[in-house]
Amino acid sequence: MDIEYREFETKRETYAYINENAEKIAAETDNVVAVLANVSALLRMELRDTNWAGFYLMKDGVLILGPFQGKPAVVRIEPGSGVCGTAVAENRAQIVEDVHKCTNHIACDAASSSEIVVPIYAAGELFGVIDIDSPSTGTFDGEDLTCLTETARILGDFLSKTSK
Amino acid sequence: MDIEYREFETKRETYAYINENAEKIAAETDNVVAVLANVSALLRMELRDTNWAGFYLMKDGVLILGPFQGKPAVVRIEPGSGVCGTAVAENRAQIVEDVHKCTNHIACDAASSSEIVVPIYAAGELFGVIDIDSPSTGTFDGEDLTCLTETARILGDFLSKTSK
Repeated sequence: MDIEYREFETKRETYAYINENAEKIAAETDNVVAVLANVSALLRMELRDTNWAGFYLMKDGVLILGPFQGKPAVVRIEPGSGVCGTAVAENRAQIVEDVHKCTNHIACDAASSSEIVVPIYAAGELFGVIDIDSPSTGTFDGEDLTCLTETARILGDFLSKTSK
Repeated sequence: MDIEYREFETKRETYAYINENAEKIAAETDNVVAVLANVSALLRMELRDTNWAGFYLMKDGVLILGPFQGKPAVVRIEPGSGVCGTAVAENRAQIVEDVHKCTNHIACDAASSSEIVVPIYAAGELFGVIDIDSPSTGTFDGEDLTCLTETARILGDFLSKTSK
């Protein structure tokens, strides 16, 4: 996949580029790991002020580490535990301005300060989550949520087709 | 997995740390994607002067992109194509001092200059390859080969157990 780094003025333009390329990545193969690995690379390459970007995938009711970019990370997250586990327990996206204020935070990287977690649904089931960490507080807002929900939709459509 | 970045004087010490932690990562779960994702993160975090580190996995006689760290990468590599495909065709590790001098090079990243590819065998079969790129020429030598062959052995043992 020939996706070059491009710099944009706004989040909106950055995410438009991310989602346009996520569609291309998903159209290129039916291999789930290859698609998630390339989308995590795309997110990490394009999103400023991030130190971890990737996926946790539901297996037997627990989140298991999937493809990602960043430092080595915790492998297994129970529902309700940390920001990713809370997204599963509450079945909705999470934006945390300062993870150090969360009593049950699980650090992917001790350098992480803010975090966004967006669920991915495939064929009506929770498949996993997109998880992105930033070393700064308050990095993620409603615009990230809207745009990453679209990324999750692209991946969900791909996964629904692949698992058929 | 709580693996902090540590800086060492020599390659030997760096790889001792990598392989010690690769053993821990492989002992922690039976999930292949989680193990490969964390080992690629470990390699990328510890190996100096690298811009891409990860895995291509054999599926139906072709290499398909696995977990990695770096820029988005080509998904499918035929045996004999590029450095990874040559490793498969010749069934042995490859060290390339300057990929720009290879006529059939497949760039994971245009910034890559040298590359090392080491096969991973599981239960006697070629499972895939470890692929690491550097932005400098001549980064990898016999010491990288010896140490990454040990990393591949650790992963092969894990995979042989997991697939039982």
